[in-house]
Amino acid sequence: METVQEKALAAFGAKGIDNPAHVRGVIRRGGWATHTSGVAEGRVQGNLVILPEALANDFLRYCQRNPKPCPVLAVSEVGQTALPSLGADIDIRTDLPMYRIWQHGELMHEVADVSSVWRADLVTFVLGCSFSFESALQEVGIRLRHIEQGKNVAMYRTNIPTAPAGPFGGAMVVSMRPMRAADAIRAVQVTSRFPDVHGAPVHIGDPALIGISDINAPDYGDPVEVMPDEIPVFWACGVTPQSAILHAQPAFCITHAPGCMLVTDLFNHQLASF
Amino acid sequence: METVQEKALAAFGAKGIDNPAHVRGVIRRGGWATHTSGVAEGRVQGNLVILPEALANDFLRYCQRNPKPCPVLAVSEVGQTALPSLGADIDIRTDLPMYRIWQHGELMHEVADVSSVWRADLVTFVLGCSFSFESALQEVGIRLRHIEQGKNVAMYRTNIPTAPAGPFGGAMVVSMRPMRAADAIRAVQVTSRFPDVHGAPVHIGDPALIGISDINAPDYGDPVEVMPDEIPVFWACGVTPQSAILHAQPAFCITHAPGCMLVTDLFNHQLASF
Repeated sequence: METVQEKALAAFGAKGIDNPAHVRGVIRRGGWATHTSGVAEGRVQGNLVILPEALANDFLRYCQRNPKPCPVLAVSEVGQTALPSLGADIDIRTDLPMYRIWQHGELMHEVADVSSVWRADLVTFVLGCSFSFESALQEVGIRLRHIEQGKNVAMYRTNIPTAPAGPFGGAMVVSMRPMRAADAIRAVQVTSRFPDVHGAPVHIGDPALIGISDINAPDYGDPVEVMPDEIPVFWACGVTPQSAILHAQPAFCITHAPGCMLVTDLFNHQLASF
Repeated sequence: METVQEKALAAFGAKGIDNPAHVRGVIRRGGWATHTSGVAEGRVQGNLVILPEALANDFLRYCQRNPKPCPVLAVSEVGQTALPSLGADIDIRTDLPMYRIWQHGELMHEVADVSSVWRADLVTFVLGCSFSFESALQEVGIRLRHIEQGKNVAMYRTNIPTAPAGPFGGAMVVSMRPMRAADAIRAVQVTSRFPDVHGAPVHIGDPALIGISDINAPDYGDPVEVMPDEIPVFWACGVTPQSAILHAQPAFCITHAPGCMLVTDLFNHQLASF
């Protein structure tokens, strides 16, 4: 069986895998329909939310009030499919490997191209995702167990309320990474530099204090073991806006499918605040 | 009975309490012989170590190898009593409220003036102290229980070894401040800006992981309660160099008496690294 890496090499070619415009081109032509983890290393990838203009202002205010779970990297002009600040050639209808189409809070379709459902009143939001800060953590030598074990990160609904805006609201979703205390302190420093991709942790230590009853039973993703000499570190998670959308139940909405992100031209290090 | 504040007002005058040169002058003339906590708010105060030149290089290397417990603010010229980078008028023999004189690792005298034992081969080290970062924490609204309860901070010997240099070595001493997780994360950010006064914490969470068997029984200072919704946060402590000096047992050494620091002209905010 082919590994993910072998598949990626076959799809993008040895040089193309690091070239974000080339990666988007391959995806656009239907040559890559799965998750983008490990693709275009060093480049920022983004969560996608597309909403009708009538809801876009409320959603933008929601993001503004909840910058840790919902850091906005870019907002499109109404009806426009381009996002020039993230990449000159981007067509948001075709450049993600897989999309989800929602109606009234229900998942209706998972498709590789949303051109056929595009509308002139749609506004696109690209939100920062944890891939960027995980890469920054690994660069300072912090090991991330879920990556080493080929798992998805463990995610939990909490009792931390988000600040509502219009119909958007609900509890914050967090991701958890176990590490030793010295690494946890270093991780606070490193991720504080990246406010556009969730920034510093929101909690550290006892999961019960933020309403998580069983650390071994995440609400999303895979369980990841916390060793006796480790402390769980919790970051605001990009699933929070999806949860806010379920809460709002908009008549029409498009998001990325889990792990199938928009690959941008931005370098992760461009997002560092100092 | 007079409060400490009333005593300070009587000694320094309403305006003089904020003027570091005036404070040093009063101390120099014998007008203030107790701890300097709360005096000259906003100014850096320093721990003092004075050693014979023969040991000074080893001690400086020890500080260089252990910057978190031993952050060097200034080193004097051999035999000189001035420290111009910390204050134009400083005479290190008279400008602290109380000194300790050590011989072969034993405390021999506690005196308000070391002029009579001064020697031409002495080198002065001024090391950053936690007063500066505590002030920075309070400025962002983080409450420190030991200060609110009028206690000394709780300090513990750990099993974290320091990097030895010459005769200097031994385990790190840490101070502990309990706080809620969100404040602990903010405290990492705030104190990371102040590497010259111990910087970021060295540990967070389970005390047993750094060799502390009973959090309610500190080795120095006062016990401070950790509430059920709090996490203990541990910083490298300025008692570490004193412990290293006990370890080295120099024939002659002068330190400050606990809490009786050198008041410098530097503003705490001058030490911020960004």
